[in-house]
Amino acid sequence: MRLSEEVTINEVGLRDGLQLESTVLSASQKAVIYTHLKKANVQEIEFGSFVHPKLVPQMANTGEFFEKIKGDTDVILTALIPNLRGLERANEYGVNAANFVFSASNTHNLQNVRQTTEQSLESLKIIVQYASAHQIDLHISIATSFGCPFEGTAPQENIMKITEQLLNYNIKRITYADTTGMANPMQVNRLMKEIKQEWKNFEFGCHFHNTRGMGLVNILAAMEANIAIFDSSLGGIGGCPFAPGATGNVCSEDVVHMLEEMGVRTGVDLDELLQASLQLKEFLGHELPGQVMKAGKSTRRYPVPN
Amino acid sequence: MRLSEEVTINEVGLRDGLQLESTVLSASQKAVIYTHLKKANVQEIEFGSFVHPKLVPQMANTGEFFEKIKGDTDVILTALIPNLRGLERANEYGVNAANFVFSASNTHNLQNVRQTTEQSLESLKIIVQYASAHQIDLHISIATSFGCPFEGTAPQENIMKITEQLLNYNIKRITYADTTGMANPMQVNRLMKEIKQEWKNFEFGCHFHNTRGMGLVNILAAMEANIAIFDSSLGGIGGCPFAPGATGNVCSEDVVHMLEEMGVRTGVDLDELLQASLQLKEFLGHELPGQVMKAGKSTRRYPVPN
Repeated sequence: MRLSEEVTINEVGLRDGLQLESTVLSASQKAVIYTHLKKANVQEIEFGSFVHPKLVPQMANTGEFFEKIKGDTDVILTALIPNLRGLERANEYGVNAANFVFSASNTHNLQNVRQTTEQSLESLKIIVQYASAHQIDLHISIATSFGCPFEGTAPQENIMKITEQLLNYNIKRITYADTTGMANPMQVNRLMKEIKQEWKNFEFGCHFHNTRGMGLVNILAAMEANIAIFDSSLGGIGGCPFAPGATGNVCSEDVVHMLEEMGVRTGVDLDELLQASLQLKEFLGHELPGQVMKAGKSTRRYPVPN
Repeated sequence: MRLSEEVTINEVGLRDGLQLESTVLSASQKAVIYTHLKKANVQEIEFGSFVHPKLVPQMANTGEFFEKIKGDTDVILTALIPNLRGLERANEYGVNAANFVFSASNTHNLQNVRQTTEQSLESLKIIVQYASAHQIDLHISIATSFGCPFEGTAPQENIMKITEQLLNYNIKRITYADTTGMANPMQVNRLMKEIKQEWKNFEFGCHFHNTRGMGLVNILAAMEANIAIFDSSLGGIGGCPFAPGATGNVCSEDVVHMLEEMGVRTGVDLDELLQASLQLKEFLGHELPGQVMKAGKSTRRYPVPN
């Protein structure tokens, strides 16, 4: 088993994570979580999304929250955008990295952003132009890259074709998202190997959900195909509001714990990250799916009973 | 990623699974679960343990339960035994496969069976003699094979040495157990590769707990080292009463789901297995950790909203 020595964690709890929560966190509460994440030395944070506030009220204060953290230049701060309007709003706030999301599945894309996949790809042209003109790094996330709750398994050739189209544009990263936790490790390994074989030097990442318990194992399978950038969510919260059956993202602490136990460096301070999760749990007022926050790290020792 | 095409599932829910439950299932309730497991075509079942009833009251009716199912010859029915006395009781009931458990960690073995590891290995001699004389297949489970909550990480050379000693005896299988979910995939892959390299043709299995979310990923890592026998527990219940921090075994349905999704055959009917879990949940009166029983299989389709 050969794995890369380093992995980059892109923390998406403040965006994908909070989307399905009934409690809406205030900008100040988000800033408290952010401070914990900074302490934990997390290098990339997707901090919110510029979508219509009526559609995703949890994200309505994204701009207000960004005002509190925008001075921070040593963290890559990314905002999700569903369209040009979102990117324009992000730009008004001074955001300099955006994550444009659309779905490989037509049906899911229509539900999520009211466009066909083809239309999203078409609208990407002006999004890229705008981003380039305003020095905004553009990441692309392909939702339902492995499966769609309406259409079923994503055909690999479709994902390859979309990737090829995307690579004509001036973009910085492509992330393959398993939006509703349908991917299995064999499928992940196969797709990511083909992607990495076809396009050796581009920046690719993966985004897994733990809906059916396969979040960590899919990360390992992707690592075995040389992927070294992963989205994950504090406490394992999250899910897409427009994807039935969507549940928690793979949990950041559990990912970092597994990687560090294997000797793979993440640069993240796990103890501080666990503090961030405990704070998030307090804000949300319920148990979070993360397991290391309950069990403690593997290195935890117990006293011997008499 | 090369994996074996077939995997054997050894269902341990009725033994390891029930051990930590406050509700004690009656022999008849266990028989109901058993009937579901049979319907699901599970080939191996660890149905209980012959330990002192005061120490593990959930197992006190193991003999009574076995009386109800002993006619069944097409399933391998294994009982856990901690010592010769347990094996003698198992034999009185007509059990013909036993699983002798001891710990690689001295401290844990003293807590669990009040013997040092050396003493357990010593007592194995007469256990093997007795089993051979009575045509009982003997499986061995090495608890804390990857880590111990008192002693920490298990040194690989220690596990190799114990394995070598065990292979002098007339035994049928050795199972490496991660009793409190401390193993990581790299460690699992490394140990199992060395074991399989040293002793090519012996029957080895693994037993993982999902304490820190790594149950499935450790199975994949073991499969990549050619291990194809895995213990798992219905609904993901379970844990060792003498190991602090022990929580659920890796969940049978989640394991079967992952394997079948990857095209690895288990022979198990997943839909029937899910029925077994739902029945178990009803008997125990609380949610179980299993995730596929909540989310449904990856193949689940949702209607498109209007």
